[in-house]
Amino acid sequence: MKLATEKSESPDGRLLVVSSDLSSTVAATGIAASLQEALDRWDAVSGPLASLYAALNTGDALGIRPLPWQQLTAPLPRAWQWLDGSAYPSHGELMQRAYDLPPIETSAPLMYQGMSHEFLGPYADVPFPSEEDGIDFECELGIITARVPLGTTARAARNCVRLLIQINDWSLRALAPAEMKTGFGWIQAKPACSLAPIALTPDEIGPLWRDNRICATVEVWRGAEAFGAVPATEMAFGFDELIAHAARTRALCPGTVIGSGTVSSRAHRETGSCCIAERRAIEKLDCGEPRTPFLRFGERVRCQARGQGFAQPLFGVMDQRVIDAHSR
Amino acid sequence: MKLATEKSESPDGRLLVVSSDLSSTVAATGIAASLQEALDRWDAVSGPLASLYAALNTGDALGIRPLPWQQLTAPLPRAWQWLDGSAYPSHGELMQRAYDLPPIETSAPLMYQGMSHEFLGPYADVPFPSEEDGIDFECELGIITARVPLGTTARAARNCVRLLIQINDWSLRALAPAEMKTGFGWIQAKPACSLAPIALTPDEIGPLWRDNRICATVEVWRGAEAFGAVPATEMAFGFDELIAHAARTRALCPGTVIGSGTVSSRAHRETGSCCIAERRAIEKLDCGEPRTPFLRFGERVRCQARGQGFAQPLFGVMDQRVIDAHSR
Repeated sequence: MKLATEKSESPDGRLLVVSSDLSSTVAATGIAASLQEALDRWDAVSGPLASLYAALNTGDALGIRPLPWQQLTAPLPRAWQWLDGSAYPSHGELMQRAYDLPPIETSAPLMYQGMSHEFLGPYADVPFPSEEDGIDFECELGIITARVPLGTTARAARNCVRLLIQINDWSLRALAPAEMKTGFGWIQAKPACSLAPIALTPDEIGPLWRDNRICATVEVWRGAEAFGAVPATEMAFGFDELIAHAARTRALCPGTVIGSGTVSSRAHRETGSCCIAERRAIEKLDCGEPRTPFLRFGERVRCQARGQGFAQPLFGVMDQRVIDAHSR
Repeated sequence: MKLATEKSESPDGRLLVVSSDLSSTVAATGIAASLQEALDRWDAVSGPLASLYAALNTGDALGIRPLPWQQLTAPLPRAWQWLDGSAYPSHGELMQRAYDLPPIETSAPLMYQGMSHEFLGPYADVPFPSEEDGIDFECELGIITARVPLGTTARAARNCVRLLIQINDWSLRALAPAEMKTGFGWIQAKPACSLAPIALTPDEIGPLWRDNRICATVEVWRGAEAFGAVPATEMAFGFDELIAHAARTRALCPGTVIGSGTVSSRAHRETGSCCIAERRAIEKLDCGEPRTPFLRFGERVRCQARGQGFAQPLFGVMDQRVIDAHSR
């Protein structure tokens, strides 16, 4: 099943069922008004949504129309909980070298709680207060959970993955190290993330959903420049383990968004990177200093995820412009 | 104005206006269904709520009934954003000594984003998975914000404080240091907080709302033992500054909850403490080792805030029992 959210009067938007080939859609009106509502009532609505999806794909549903890409918001325009992992060891290692941080000594998954009262849509301008803050993107993959009871094991957590998504976790690199050093995690360095327009049930990507990981290739362009095309296979923990980590002492609400952290590969010299900071780290190691500047106002960042055997980007495309928050 | 939330079919509960003497109430039905809705539409609803409050206090409102204390939930049973400060230097200094942490080098307020999809009510049992995790309370004061634009200054933030509240930020001390060392903040060490039942507009506490601080005394009992009676005056940053810190790179949604961090005093030998960890730190300094154990299942924790000239606890009372999550 493929789902999206269309702008509406409601801050949660209107839930759309999207055809398998991403060409057409039908509103889920009468089943669930919003994706959050669908997640809250999943056992009751997933059957009717699946039936509607089947009818849409055969052209038998009522109210079929072309998918209004430009009207799509984030699948969840807001969520009650956003927990971002950092599950790609290659990224962590490079960042530590770049920012001269001591290695993080833990065998547990890394995870912080981030801002979730707004997820930007895939084509929304991204406002920042200053170019001096080191504006960067972080292309990630993620999941949206079911209700997860406290103490859920990784094994049981496999059944708590409702939807797969793609995320751009915008980051402010000039602010991040100082916040990290406090031990309290990031507030200023991590404003709102963006979500790609299409959310998928895991069955939609077939063998690419493997070992509780999304084994796609994440592609990112900075303006016209191909910045990275990074296979997302090197995740040290699966999403099952990330869920279990988060649920060790708390129950997770339906619609909890969990991120993989920046996709990264040990073969980064061939694949490129999913964030500027990582490329700067590589430049520092290679040339003694970082050369690639962070983003300036007016620059565009485009990202998508490709999977072998799939003609279309799995989650649609995010294509956004970085702007001066004070100019709005 | 004094507000509370009563259990209802809705996860956000039903908004109540509470009389000045905390004896009686009238539902805000017809003005706003829930506190979150009132905060979302504050400019439209604050006048009608104030009129209803006035009529309730003179006995002229329709539908007046005794305040149903046991039916009260957290004023916000859930929120889109919870940002907890750590603004009492005395607490930070003692914790660093207790947990052998290096001093945190920052001139900015300390703040992390915590779990907000559930705030426990003032009499709810508090479930934890294991007594081995070092179960502790942290009695704090806090505010609930208006919508706060990105880049709001501390001066402008004064007008963004909608309501004052009291918080118990339950913490798991055996898990906290390892999470803090990652730099990512706390997930496992900080499950759901509890909120005291009554939320107040700042004018309700008159001179006790001073310099953007709640100058009350926070009292806490562990079972029958008076554990602390700590004046909340030593906050290094006012709530105006905490708001401005959070809003440096993000807009805050209406209903953002911001906490002071554990209330603490340099005179802690006279005042006692608002958490067990702090007393253990003092014991370690005095006797070479901590002596006070963390909480066991079945123990009760009661806390409230007192203000000079006020007969009643300002925010009502939280009185909760710690329980084994697996026994529910």
